[in-house]
Amino acid sequence: MLSLETMQQHIAPLFPGLMGVRLVEVTPERVVGELVVRPELCTSGEIMHGGAYMAFADTLGAVGTVLNMERGKRTTTTDSSTKFIGGAKLNTTVVGESVPLHRGRTTQVWQTSIRTAEGKLCAVVTQTQLILG
Amino acid sequence: MLSLETMQQHIAPLFPGLMGVRLVEVTPERVVGELVVRPELCTSGEIMHGGAYMAFADTLGAVGTVLNMERGKRTTTTDSSTKFIGGAKLNTTVVGESVPLHRGRTTQVWQTSIRTAEGKLCAVVTQTQLILG
Amino acid sequence: MLSLETMQQHIAPLFPGLMGVRLVEVTPERVVGELVVRPELCTSGEIMHGGAYMAFADTLGAVGTVLNMERGKRTTTTDSSTKFIGGAKLNTTVVGESVPLHRGRTTQVWQTSIRTAEGKLCAVVTQTQLILG
Amino acid sequence: MLSLETMQQHIAPLFPGLMGVRLVEVTPERVVGELVVRPELCTSGEIMHGGAYMAFADTLGAVGTVLNMERGKRTTTTDSSTKFIGGAKLNTTVVGESVPLHRGRTTQVWQTSIRTAEGKLCAVVTQTQLILG
Repeated sequence: MLSLETMQQHIAPLFPGLMGVRLVEVTPERVVGELVVRPELCTSGEIMHGGAYMAFADTLGAVGTVLNMERGKRTTTTDSSTKFIGGAKLNTTVVGESVPLHRGRTTQVWQTSIRTAEGKLCAVVTQTQLILG
Repeated sequence: MLSLETMQQHIAPLFPGLMGVRLVEVTPERVVGELVVRPELCTSGEIMHGGAYMAFADTLGAVGTVLNMERGKRTTTTDSSTKFIGGAKLNTTVVGESVPLHRGRTTQVWQTSIRTAEGKLCAVVTQTQLILG
Repeated sequence: MLSLETMQQHIAPLFPGLMGVRLVEVTPERVVGELVVRPELCTSGEIMHGGAYMAFADTLGAVGTVLNMERGKRTTTTDSSTKFIGGAKLNTTVVGESVPLHRGRTTQVWQTSIRTAEGKLCAVVTQTQLILG
Repeated sequence: MLSLETMQQHIAPLFPGLMGVRLVEVTPERVVGELVVRPELCTSGEIMHGGAYMAFADTLGAVGTVLNMERGKRTTTTDSSTKFIGGAKLNTTVVGESVPLHRGRTTQVWQTSIRTAEGKLCAVVTQTQLILG
């Protein structure tokens, strides 16, 4: 089984690393990450950019999928749908929690809720992962 | 009317700037941008990260919305849906073109197609922007 | 507060009535409905048509929104995203449960899970309702 | 190749038949259908029910997918995302046009635009079809 450290090292040179995604919990039933809302993750008005929410969630859902795949398989996101609900302010930390809605052989569906440190819901992202290979 | 240079400067210190989004055409009917697929925009396998597609598109659609709003209004993305269709390879350039499906007083809907330099479709992102204030 | 009977009578001559949607629980925190998978709600292969899932869910989420609006307001769905997960067979009954992810003054977000009578997840529908007037 | 008449007969006893979907053009590059907005396809306010738009589109996109599949394969919708843009009034006719965004071996993506007879855009539905078997 892939450890949290292995996963964190794996994403470090990639887009989640550029953003600063920090994995906190990595199990087949739940993936949790944190992200500090630095200025360069924001949009106008000193709130987190919508694209940063989506990229953060995509990362967590993909990690969860990998943890549930047979060895030797690959996965790709085919669909992602986001509801933006509330803003996360500059220099705060957001927490993303991704849980599976479906873990099939051909597809998996993961839903990620992104909240402020106080627990206010900011965005919900639901993504479909196709299992290949 | 906001110029391309003004818009480019506006996004430079924000998330699109971190990613390297370069605006190419900025009109109320069409917004075009480019993005070089640097290593830190990728996921495993040396292809562009799904989150980078979504953040790129979100930026273009929001720019288009701003160009169609009355002065003094604000906008926020409420929904974004993405279909991932093909991969964009490391060190290539992708082109995003965003066009309006709807430009109302309360909401606008923009659809962004992201393609490789050769024109192969990589992703289609459709987003709803709520007009506030 | 609108009663279950009032709501059921309201939808009877409308699309949910054509489909046969039966409201089971109608509270501001949760809306539950049932639907018998008659032949004319199916697609090929004697399973429930994808469109029937979406219409069933749209109905439940809209009912929930109405129960949380101030008197005199109206609502319209602006976005709906569905993940299809499993098939529901001809002549079985499916149960839809809709819960709010967000209940704001301008928008509400409701998520509906549709399951077989045995509890197997068939589809998850997440919709945004704009509050007007 | 499947004819329009064959397709129309195929859907008659199914959900599209209950709704009254009439296929008008059925080619691998484009599927067009019509639907009369009868009272029992409406929601409150004498406008077409959001679920009816989604079910109409789902039907057209699935027909398009079938026309592009190899013989012996099956398809299922995995994802569908809808933007609701304008209302269609009671007793008018709406026209749905579905075109492919992607026709791959594993997935197809179809986008359906639903318009009034006068050409006003009512809804845009984008769906992913998984090819099985």
